[in-house]
Amino acid sequence: MTHPRYTDLIQGLPANVPFVGPEQQERVRGAAFTARLGANENIFGPSPKAVEAMRRGAADIWKYGDASSHDLRHALAGHMGCAPENILVGEGIDGLLGNLVRLLIAPGDAVVTSDGAYPTFNYHVTGFGGALHKLPYREDREDLPALLAMAAKVDAKLVYLSNPDNPMGSWHKAADIQREIDAHLPEGCLFLLDEAYVEFAPEGTALEVDVNDPRVIRMRTFSKAYGMAGARVGYAIGAPDLIRSFDKIRNHFGMNRMAQAGALAALQDRQWLAQTQAKVAEARKAIAAIAVENGLVALPSAANFVAVDCRQDGDFARRVLAALSARGIFVRMPFVAPQDRCIRISCGRPEDLEHLAQALPEALDEARG
Amino acid sequence: MTHPRYTDLIQGLPANVPFVGPEQQERVRGAAFTARLGANENIFGPSPKAVEAMRRGAADIWKYGDASSHDLRHALAGHMGCAPENILVGEGIDGLLGNLVRLLIAPGDAVVTSDGAYPTFNYHVTGFGGALHKLPYREDREDLPALLAMAAKVDAKLVYLSNPDNPMGSWHKAADIQREIDAHLPEGCLFLLDEAYVEFAPEGTALEVDVNDPRVIRMRTFSKAYGMAGARVGYAIGAPDLIRSFDKIRNHFGMNRMAQAGALAALQDRQWLAQTQAKVAEARKAIAAIAVENGLVALPSAANFVAVDCRQDGDFARRVLAALSARGIFVRMPFVAPQDRCIRISCGRPEDLEHLAQALPEALDEARG
Repeated sequence: MTHPRYTDLIQGLPANVPFVGPEQQERVRGAAFTARLGANENIFGPSPKAVEAMRRGAADIWKYGDASSHDLRHALAGHMGCAPENILVGEGIDGLLGNLVRLLIAPGDAVVTSDGAYPTFNYHVTGFGGALHKLPYREDREDLPALLAMAAKVDAKLVYLSNPDNPMGSWHKAADIQREIDAHLPEGCLFLLDEAYVEFAPEGTALEVDVNDPRVIRMRTFSKAYGMAGARVGYAIGAPDLIRSFDKIRNHFGMNRMAQAGALAALQDRQWLAQTQAKVAEARKAIAAIAVENGLVALPSAANFVAVDCRQDGDFARRVLAALSARGIFVRMPFVAPQDRCIRISCGRPEDLEHLAQALPEALDEARG
Repeated sequence: MTHPRYTDLIQGLPANVPFVGPEQQERVRGAAFTARLGANENIFGPSPKAVEAMRRGAADIWKYGDASSHDLRHALAGHMGCAPENILVGEGIDGLLGNLVRLLIAPGDAVVTSDGAYPTFNYHVTGFGGALHKLPYREDREDLPALLAMAAKVDAKLVYLSNPDNPMGSWHKAADIQREIDAHLPEGCLFLLDEAYVEFAPEGTALEVDVNDPRVIRMRTFSKAYGMAGARVGYAIGAPDLIRSFDKIRNHFGMNRMAQAGALAALQDRQWLAQTQAKVAEARKAIAAIAVENGLVALPSAANFVAVDCRQDGDFARRVLAALSARGIFVRMPFVAPQDRCIRISCGRPEDLEHLAQALPEALDEARG
């Protein structure tokens, strides 16, 4: 008999991981990256007030965090215009996604997403034995009507949409999403809207659904616009019954106490957020300009990254990526054709983009062989 | 049709939570506690070097943490005298327990623990549908021979022991545990040893098992001796195959980046740890003295808390607890008879224990009616 005895589900799972982190890549290549533009981190950083709140919290770290994230949850409720009972704070969207999937998905249950959308969501679905139904992008956007039609066809319990989309940066108007939900979301299917990047998007992108609508759950994060990816703070907005159901399974004392304090301070610093949004908009333009200079095409983006179409196939884009990495530029790219003709460049400071601008022509030459 | 459609397992789970945090109790009572002695936090706090490392890390929080916790894992391997492949860093022991249960326990699978031992472990077992078999304490210690006999009888996949024990503070010698494992651990049953408090215990308490023994997994934490409960850093030590299996399901980017840096610095400050151990030993004596002054009995403890026998039944001890809480003293107590004749007092600074010494006589009077 083997030791230990894993469940059948676990034995059937692949050993692969959703992402290899930049630190691991740096250890393999034996040198640090000069520009860290691959994980859609917000290199403009958190509000100094958030930094200060975390620093103040460091000495108090002997205390467990507040299990209900009371202060942050109440502030988020004010921010979102809803009740605290509509808000769940968790260990980043990744952690929230895992728990949501666990609530709904038993082995064999159907889940619908786009082919090439967020791998960590797929990882969780597979991890709980769900049956993933993936639909292709349509003109580099997630194909919402097709996703909902598939959800009806396979009796999905959960359908995933990110808006803006990662990795393409494309987006839908909130009104279009709301209309699709109202017209075509099947009975018994929860609509999971990942709004991780929504603070970077144009007005009218963030869904303004009735927070008590039991058909929809939204997720947001402090990892992107608020510059706190390493803190692990995300939140879900949904109907109170659904929000409360997480209490059956979540790690109640799982929140880092400094992160709770930092997120609260970050949320309150609207000026810093506005400044970040402006810097990101500038960086998107700068990345697009670098793309054009190199004969490439920058796709429109509502996020803090730009998908740059290398105008050949996935093998070519992968060679560009490798050549950039060899020159100290950390970027990533879409996993699935035809989106994998692109590389995905996170917004950076002028000095980061200067490194990119210098390395890209050589990387393209190398990739062209 | 209800929205959303939860799994059968989730629908059957109770809504209760393992613990109500002190912040929640403070909100209910409308005032802060004057002494926070209920959650076995380490009020002596983290090493100043750990605080400094976390503060330095705050500005870099825009980066995700290293998904493999490479530096901390390697340092822990050095500390434990094993390979990095024997170590998994996770979001506290609570997080690690949840993932371990998920790896092994499918609905109906048997798990053995002591009645009154760690509720969060039970919460995870129940949360994955496991069948808990609980055995009574024996003379206020976990009854290891009985646990292993029950494991054989019910074909358990997992048996839990905490050493030192929480909530009683009792302990087993490592040699006794090793002998029991070798003689009586059934085939196919993983021995889960929770050593959260082991740094406070006498020499010879920490198990020195072969790290590659696939029958045993140990868990330790930075929440107790290292004073970093709010950081959420725990680690598991086990055979490489078992450690690697967590990669199939864990939240790879779930670690807070400041917490990783702080834990590394804390681990390296052996002098601070020694000082904490001495302070905890002093506090245990002081709590015992307070107990004696009030006609109560302090049980011997190898942890950073003392179970104080109130020498009546659970109802009486619960009244003492409530009366202490009303006087601003946060303590907890065992959940199950006859251990619930005790209240459990975490080690505190002299000023914390002075608050306790002042409140306890009144609380006892009130409880006696």
